[in-house]
Amino acid sequence: METPMTDLASVQQAIHDLGAAGLSVLTSRGEREQRGKDQTFLPAHASDAVVFAESTDDVVKIVNICRTHRCPITPFGAGTSSEGHIAALHGGICIDLTRMNAVLQVNADDFDCVVQAGITRESLNRYLRDTGLFFPIDACPEASIGGMVSTRASGTHAVRYGTMRENVINVTAVLIDGRVVKTANRARKSAAAYDLTRLFVGSAGTLGIITEVTVRLHPVPDHVAAAVCAFPTIGDAARLVIEASQAGVCFAKVEFMDTVQIAWTNAYSKTNLAPKPHLFFEFDGPPQAVKEHAAIVEELAREHGASPLQWAIDAAERAHLWRARHEAIYACFAGRPGCQAWATDVTVPISRLADCIEETQRDLQELPFPVPILGHVGDGNFHLAFMIDPARPEEYEMAHDVYDRMVRRAIAMDGTCTGEHGVGYFKNRYLVEEFGEDTLSMMRDIKRALDPMNLLNPGKLFDAI
Amino acid sequence: METPMTDLASVQQAIHDLGAAGLSVLTSRGEREQRGKDQTFLPAHASDAVVFAESTDDVVKIVNICRTHRCPITPFGAGTSSEGHIAALHGGICIDLTRMNAVLQVNADDFDCVVQAGITRESLNRYLRDTGLFFPIDACPEASIGGMVSTRASGTHAVRYGTMRENVINVTAVLIDGRVVKTANRARKSAAAYDLTRLFVGSAGTLGIITEVTVRLHPVPDHVAAAVCAFPTIGDAARLVIEASQAGVCFAKVEFMDTVQIAWTNAYSKTNLAPKPHLFFEFDGPPQAVKEHAAIVEELAREHGASPLQWAIDAAERAHLWRARHEAIYACFAGRPGCQAWATDVTVPISRLADCIEETQRDLQELPFPVPILGHVGDGNFHLAFMIDPARPEEYEMAHDVYDRMVRRAIAMDGTCTGEHGVGYFKNRYLVEEFGEDTLSMMRDIKRALDPMNLLNPGKLFDAI
Repeated sequence: METPMTDLASVQQAIHDLGAAGLSVLTSRGEREQRGKDQTFLPAHASDAVVFAESTDDVVKIVNICRTHRCPITPFGAGTSSEGHIAALHGGICIDLTRMNAVLQVNADDFDCVVQAGITRESLNRYLRDTGLFFPIDACPEASIGGMVSTRASGTHAVRYGTMRENVINVTAVLIDGRVVKTANRARKSAAAYDLTRLFVGSAGTLGIITEVTVRLHPVPDHVAAAVCAFPTIGDAARLVIEASQAGVCFAKVEFMDTVQIAWTNAYSKTNLAPKPHLFFEFDGPPQAVKEHAAIVEELAREHGASPLQWAIDAAERAHLWRARHEAIYACFAGRPGCQAWATDVTVPISRLADCIEETQRDLQELPFPVPILGHVGDGNFHLAFMIDPARPEEYEMAHDVYDRMVRRAIAMDGTCTGEHGVGYFKNRYLVEEFGEDTLSMMRDIKRALDPMNLLNPGKLFDAI
Repeated sequence: METPMTDLASVQQAIHDLGAAGLSVLTSRGEREQRGKDQTFLPAHASDAVVFAESTDDVVKIVNICRTHRCPITPFGAGTSSEGHIAALHGGICIDLTRMNAVLQVNADDFDCVVQAGITRESLNRYLRDTGLFFPIDACPEASIGGMVSTRASGTHAVRYGTMRENVINVTAVLIDGRVVKTANRARKSAAAYDLTRLFVGSAGTLGIITEVTVRLHPVPDHVAAAVCAFPTIGDAARLVIEASQAGVCFAKVEFMDTVQIAWTNAYSKTNLAPKPHLFFEFDGPPQAVKEHAAIVEELAREHGASPLQWAIDAAERAHLWRARHEAIYACFAGRPGCQAWATDVTVPISRLADCIEETQRDLQELPFPVPILGHVGDGNFHLAFMIDPARPEEYEMAHDVYDRMVRRAIAMDGTCTGEHGVGYFKNRYLVEEFGEDTLSMMRDIKRALDPMNLLNPGKLFDAI
C-alpha cells in the first residue's frame, strides 16, 4: 500500500524550486487554509504552499518539480466541492488554477467550446450569452469547469442534457511524469481506442491535472415553461415521473422537495406551498412540443392525486418559481440558525426512489431535529442536508448513523453512494460495498499505473493505493 | 514491447486443459476460420481452437487456463465487426459467447435491462416488443451487445439517442487474472470513482472479456415521421443540419447519400431519387412536436435550395423509405458485381463535414471505379465503401491511397479515424496521429497494468504493448 511519505524537508525543497522556477508561490496560512476548505462541514486541510499555474506548461513545470521531491499535489479550481476534494490530506502543494480562466475557442456550428480548466460555469455562460448557445450543467454557479469534470458534476438539468460525462468532449491533462495528454479531438463521436475522456471525468484529480476542456454546448431553448404541484406522497410523485417518461415526455428539469424543505422554503422564500411533497417541473423546446409534454404531465398529475399545476411561462415568473428551489440551502440555514450544513447525495434506480426516500425519512424522524430532502427525481438522485449545531457534537453522531444507513440502503437498492457530489474522501469507505473488491482493485491498478507514488490528490477515492 | 510469444505447445496444452475442464471445444478448421473472419475484406485469422462459454464462471475458467499457458484469447460475439476485431492475429483460442444470449432482467420502470453479452440487438428488441421500450442503437441487426460495447458501436439513431457510450449502464467483465469486475450498479447517474464502464466501451476486448451488460432502454416513440429531399450540394445539406440543430430541432435520424450511392440505390431498390446528394430524415416524439420540428426543417430546406420534402408517415411508407437506406450495402454489391466491399468510416466536427466529404470526393474521382459515400450527418460521421475487384489488386492499392488521405484529412480537421466501426487492427497506424504519443502511451500504460502479458485480443489497437 502506497501512501505518500510526505517528507517535510523534501516538500520545502519543492516549494523552493517552484519559486526559483519563476512560479508564483504563496505560503501564508490564510491562503493555504482557504484552498484546503470547501463548502462542507469537513475541516480545512491546508497544503504547505499554493502555486499558481497560468498555462499547461506551468503545470508541467510544477509536476516535474513535485515529482522529483515526492511532493503531493492537490488541484484547486473554485473550492465549491461538497465532499472535501480539495483537502490537502497529505500536505504538499496546492495548484491553483483560477488564473487559467480563458475561453480558447467557441465553435458555434459544432456546438462546443474549448476552455481553460479554471473558468467558472457562470463565467462561461456569460461569455456565451450572444451565441444562442449555453453550457447546461448547473452545479454551483461558481464551480470551475475543471472541478466539475473531476467530480463528474451534474445538477437540475441532467435529466435533459446529461451530466459532465455526456458533456465533455476532451480534456488536456498533465500526468505525474510530465506527459501532456489530450484525450480526443473534437468529433462528436469516436470509436477510436480507450475513452480516456470519461476516465478523467470523475477521477477527482487523482490521475492528472486537468488544464483544458472541450465541452458540448446546447441551443438556448426557444420556449421554456415551468410549473409546480403538490402530491399526496413521494411515491405518487415518482410514479408520475416514470409514467411521463414512458409516454415520451422529455423533462428539462424535475425536482422534488419534501415537506420539511417546503416548510423552510415557505418561511425563507415567502412562498405559500402546501405542506406536502412537491415536484417542480421545467419543459423546453419549440412551443407546441412544450405544450404537448406539459399536457401529458397535467393529466398524469390528476391521476396521481396531485394539486393542479401552477404554471410559470415568462422569464420573471419562472425565475420566481425556481428561486424557491435555488434558495433551498439558504432556507436550510434559516431553518436551523447557527448550524453547519452536512449535505450529501445518493442515487438509486428510479423504481426504488420512493422506497429509498421513505425509509430514509423514517430514520430521520428518530432525530431530534428536522432534516430536509431535495431530489433530482428524473435521475433517481436525492440530497439530504443535516443542519448540525456545532455546539452539540452528539448531533453529528446521530446524523452519521442515519447517513450511513442511507448510503448503504442506496447501494443495496442497486444504486450509488453519490450521484453528483463525488466521493471526495469521506465516502471512500463505501466503495468496496458499491463495487466489490475486484472492481475497486482494478481502479487501484489504473491509479498505480499512472501515479505510482500516489502524489496526485492522495487520499481521495482510496485511503491508500 | 510485449507481443505474445505464442508457443504452440503451450497453446495445445491450454486447449487440452480446457477440454479436460469440461468446456466445449472445437478445433476443426472451418469452425476456427469462420470465427476469425468478419464482414470485411480482411483475411481470416483463425484461432487454434474455439471454446464456448455459457456463463461468467466458464469465462473465468477459460481465462485462468489460458493465462497459465500464456495462450492468447480473442472474444467472438457475432462476427459482424467491420475492422477485423475478431481476427486471432496471434492464434490462441477464441471464446465464443453466442450461447450467452439470455435477457436476465427487464426493469421497465428504470428504462434498463440486463443481458448476457452474446445476445444480438435484434433478439433483444424482439424480446422487448411488448414492453413499450426498445434498445435504439442500430448497428448491424445481428451484432451482439457485447461486441457493440467493445467497438463503441452506434448507427443511424445516435444523433437522437447517443452511441453505446451513452447507453451502457454497466458491464460485467472477466480480467486476465480471473477477477470478475462489475463496473457500476444500475443508478442512472453516479459520481462514484472511475468510470470503468466507459473504459470497457470501445476497448475492443483488450482489457477483459465482457459477459453481461446493462443497457438503457427508451420508450417506443408515440409518433414517427420520415422524409427525404435532394440538395444542390453536400454543403447545403450540412448547413441545414447545423441550422436546424441551432433552432432546437431534435432529429431522430439524419442520413446522407451522395450521388453515386443514389444512382446505385435507384437501380437496386427501385427508387426514383434525383441524381443529387440527399438527406433522409426521421423525427419522433409526441405528434405536435414531430410536426413542429419537421416544419422548421421544411423551411430551412427551402432556404438551402432543396427539393420539397417527400414525407412518409405510416409504418409501411417509412419502411419503404428507409429500405433504400438500409439496403445501401447490397446496392453497392449490385453496383459493381463480383467485387469485395472495403467499408470504413471517419468523423469530423460537423462544421468541417462538407469540406471533408468534398475533398474526399475529389480524390475518389481519380479512381477508375465509382465509390459511394453515406453519412450520419448529425454526428459528422461518414462512410465509404470501396468496391474492389479481387482480380485487380491494383484497385486495392489505388483505394488505399485515397483511404489513407481521407483518414489523415479527418484527423487534421480535428476529427477521428473512426466514428463507429472501431480501430480493430487495420487503423492502429493512425492512433499516434490522432492522439499523439503521450496519450497513446497512457492507453498502453492502462493495457499493461491490466493485461501485462498482452493475452487479451493482442494486436488490436496496439501492434504491441
